Amino acid sequence: MNTVNTPFGFDVLTNENRPARHDNHYQRCLSSLRGLFSDEAAYEAELAKADPVVYEVYEIRRPEIAGELPHGLSVVHPGQVGTEFYMTKGHYHAVRDTAEVYYCLKGRGLMLMENEAGVWAAEEFRPGRLVYVPPGWAHRSVNLSLDEDLVTLFVYPGHAGHDYGAIEERGFRKLVMHNDGSSAIVDNPAWK
Amino acid sequence: MNTVNTPFGFDVLTNENRPARHDNHYQRCLSSLRGLFSDEAAYEAELAKADPVVYEVYEIRRPEIAGELPHGLSVVHPGQVGTEFYMTKGHYHAVRDTAEVYYCLKGRGLMLMENEAGVWAAEEFRPGRLVYVPPGWAHRSVNLSLDEDLVTLFVYPGHAGHDYGAIEERGFRKLVMHNDGSSAIVDNPAWK
Repeated sequence: MNTVNTPFGFDVLTNENRPARHDNHYQRCLSSLRGLFSDEAAYEAELAKADPVVYEVYEIRRPEIAGELPHGLSVVHPGQVGTEFYMTKGHYHAVRDTAEVYYCLKGRGLMLMENEAGVWAAEEFRPGRLVYVPPGWAHRSVNLSLDEDLVTLFVYPGHAGHDYGAIEERGFRKLVMHNDGSSAIVDNPAWK
Repeated sequence: MNTVNTPFGFDVLTNENRPARHDNHYQRCLSSLRGLFSDEAAYEAELAKADPVVYEVYEIRRPEIAGELPHGLSVVHPGQVGTEFYMTKGHYHAVRDTAEVYYCLKGRGLMLMENEAGVWAAEEFRPGRLVYVPPGWAHRSVNLSLDEDLVTLFVYPGHAGHDYGAIEERGFRKLVMHNDGSSAIVDNPAWK
């Protein structure tokens, strides 16, 4: 039997916030995220002290075709740069007409989204909550806790692809800032 | 903004094993499942006593196109007909080259699968376990508990469609039977 076409099952979350199975694992350290956070001086000051892992992704890969459903685990660690919470780079799908499902397993956070018409949205992450990112929306996970990982399970169509460039160039319209023990969604002054 | 293209989020599991949001809900009562269980005399005897809900599905609908991801909650109640555990009808996707992701939230059970080459497979359901049904595999959820609901979250490609006919005609190759407090996967003598 063709292995790629064999059913499988696995525990999504073992100890240490990783899945029992994955095909690929990558980490994004602070040093690889220059330009992501709004406070550049705070970024450089943090980086001078240490180069922590900001987030990591475990991928269960599938063929890159429409009927397949690649999936995996996203883990955003707790932290802030200046007063901006740790978050993922965020991306559009290369094929814009493709959605994504996120299901929160641990922690608390936000899915920050925006589309090419300039509309933005945010949906809360807490354990047991599903967030639907419709086709055409860039999306970024933000960890609102300073103590706990934000862990989400994601599923997307196999032909979606990833487009990080648009967000790297423009940023998101909104920033999510730590504000006196709570969080605030504010305009991004650098948004183009 | 077009509502269908607006992001949303919701608690997948509220009290009473239902999601906080759904577009459609259907129940399959014992009376609608004639021919599903192998022991026909036991089926008629059970039905003479009552017509319980065997399973129910809460659907979050999406446009039926490739980039969308309809999803929802499947709840298989505990019970047996003869010694065969309660289960779903099972189906292929009308578009065979489409996969499905199941994530178990509660209970214990099996995903019973088979493909058109005659190969079968079973994957365990327990809370926190994900089961990947690759393209081309018919799939049926079986509740192995006689006390507890089996609750799973499912996600599938928008263009998949459902084909119940092939399974209604042939059945599955394997049956899952209650056997002295445990479970056994046995050949289905009526399989064509």
